[in-house]
Amino acid sequence: MSIINKAAAIGGGVIGAGWVARLLLNGIDVSIFDPDPEASRKVSEVMKGARRAYKQMVPGGLPKEGKLTFAKTIAEAVADADFIQESVPERLDLKHRVLAEIDAHAPANAIVGSSTSGIKPTDMQVAMKKHPERLVVGHPFNPVYLLPLVEIVGGDQTFPEAIEVAKEIYASIGMKPVVIRKEIEAFVGDRLLEAAWREALWLIKDGICTVEELDDIMRYGFGLRWAQMGMFQVYRVAGGEAGMRHFMAQFGPCLKWPWTKLMDVPEFNDELVDLIATQSDDQAHGLSIRELEKIRDDNLVAIMDALSKQNKGKGWGAGALHKDYTKQLAKLAAKKPAASTAAEKAKASKPVKKAEKPKKKKKG
Amino acid sequence: MSIINKAAAIGGGVIGAGWVARLLLNGIDVSIFDPDPEASRKVSEVMKGARRAYKQMVPGGLPKEGKLTFAKTIAEAVADADFIQESVPERLDLKHRVLAEIDAHAPANAIVGSSTSGIKPTDMQVAMKKHPERLVVGHPFNPVYLLPLVEIVGGDQTFPEAIEVAKEIYASIGMKPVVIRKEIEAFVGDRLLEAAWREALWLIKDGICTVEELDDIMRYGFGLRWAQMGMFQVYRVAGGEAGMRHFMAQFGPCLKWPWTKLMDVPEFNDELVDLIATQSDDQAHGLSIRELEKIRDDNLVAIMDALSKQNKGKGWGAGALHKDYTKQLAKLAAKKPAASTAAEKAKASKPVKKAEKPKKKKKG
Repeated sequence: MSIINKAAAIGGGVIGAGWVARLLLNGIDVSIFDPDPEASRKVSEVMKGARRAYKQMVPGGLPKEGKLTFAKTIAEAVADADFIQESVPERLDLKHRVLAEIDAHAPANAIVGSSTSGIKPTDMQVAMKKHPERLVVGHPFNPVYLLPLVEIVGGDQTFPEAIEVAKEIYASIGMKPVVIRKEIEAFVGDRLLEAAWREALWLIKDGICTVEELDDIMRYGFGLRWAQMGMFQVYRVAGGEAGMRHFMAQFGPCLKWPWTKLMDVPEFNDELVDLIATQSDDQAHGLSIRELEKIRDDNLVAIMDALSKQNKGKGWGAGALHKDYTKQLAKLAAKKPAASTAAEKAKASKPVKKAEKPKKKKKG
Repeated sequence: MSIINKAAAIGGGVIGAGWVARLLLNGIDVSIFDPDPEASRKVSEVMKGARRAYKQMVPGGLPKEGKLTFAKTIAEAVADADFIQESVPERLDLKHRVLAEIDAHAPANAIVGSSTSGIKPTDMQVAMKKHPERLVVGHPFNPVYLLPLVEIVGGDQTFPEAIEVAKEIYASIGMKPVVIRKEIEAFVGDRLLEAAWREALWLIKDGICTVEELDDIMRYGFGLRWAQMGMFQVYRVAGGEAGMRHFMAQFGPCLKWPWTKLMDVPEFNDELVDLIATQSDDQAHGLSIRELEKIRDDNLVAIMDALSKQNKGKGWGAGALHKDYTKQLAKLAAKKPAASTAAEKAKASKPVKKAEKPKKKKKG
């Protein structure tokens, strides 16, 4: 069950709304702040999709949804939250302003997670004058309500206890926290995505393939491997009886071949944007974003469900986690509502214990 | 049903044996040449794994397997083949020797596919003195008997008809042929893999994460997206209502951020190989290569099967293909064996028609 009593979401775009959906569907109350007048509509659209996906995951009935409140200010949103997730646009000045305000008004023991996909926590927490030690990056992957991965990154001032509590918080809502060992820009997932993306742009720009052909090469090929084993384990197996060392020795030298474009950045101009946007329109074959979103979500649920039955019934990778998560949701759904508001209140005032007595971060 | 009567496999390593398995399980006779004295044992190991996976795919019973013959020479292996797949190690001099011999002894209308993952067909076909026009790259992905993707690449001398026939041949054994529009080294799939691999090596070398953590970041995160939609379609959806142009505008400029390591090649020394091999041992958690291979195959079958039921029952991506392929195998299994050897012989002498009268390649 979740260890969060009340969460706050700052920012309600695709990522922020995804967090809101995951939290609400776990029965957690959320207070959201987003200055966009369309925020309510956008969040409810995402919520609709998430609800649909979760109904497939837990056919016996979902837990009672948490309550969503739209706050007028950041101060109001975070006032009584024990977990705050920031998902505002990727500009350092904006992150500074928002985090300073969160820090000024949030309870002292609340954990602050940032959804940034690239900015170092050290560069962000300087704006937090009261408790910079409770900031972690909690970088999720879209759709946040379905994909389990969250990369956790601490900055220079982050206490190890904050990372531990963040891990527990994210795991309690069905996620797979992976703590990044050293702080670098873009962390791990986006480094890999960026490398592939840059190469993909070259391939499209040079007319080697279309975006549809490139996607087909992924989804009929190595994408099916990465969904369940990742890259290194797959190569270990591919090395066959000779093993990983053999594989490395065989393919290592290729790295030095003069595929120079791999190292270069394509010019990101209107022509390239047009080319890709047009090919992407073709690829959609008339399906709207909403239709594609449903297909994507159905596929994700189906893949995780399929993997949950593998490995002699124990589940494998995201499937093993999916098995536990859906079980947890079903259990939560079966629970009777709390008897009194007094009990609720007593619970709500209980602080996140481990964050209370932070020790100084050890230097690794 | 397949349009191949008799196939030849030159090279019986992980890839070559994977081709043999796919062909035999489609009821096609294969003659293989591999000078390795262990070849027979290695191929039968792969065959065992492939048979196991196919039994899950077609629970009603598999088609009668093709006959496997070990030839003593390339000449003997290709003598009466109408489709020849070359899967020897990635050295141009070796490819030249092998392709020259294949070309000298294969029937004039046989199609020659090369499993090379990086060498341009133009650079290989110069060694074929008789019929260089029938060489295509048919680059598969491991495990060849399960992953549907095959990248088809023609060289300067390749006739368009050879590409068409190759497409039909690969499709007839359940694969997804994607024709690469311009010939470049490493084609498309391996360009993307190489970019991600190089970045991954940096992340491991610099101690940002372990190989297990990196794999988890893939398989609990974007790997689940790529298995079903690939990269561009996923970003189209992520762009939300604002669409692809918005997504591109938002993330395009990140390409210029000074993540300099993205552009560089890590030194591939013993220390790095040791680090990765050791971490890979840890990651396996005591599972042998054979056990991991079974898990991988079970997962692949389960994912494709799950996707075959999506999209209102029509199947999606590799799942739609999987649906057709398993249906085709079941139909083939239900077929009665041919009545006479005379009929078999008559069938065997029928040439691959479209390759008989090749026209000159049009310049695009």
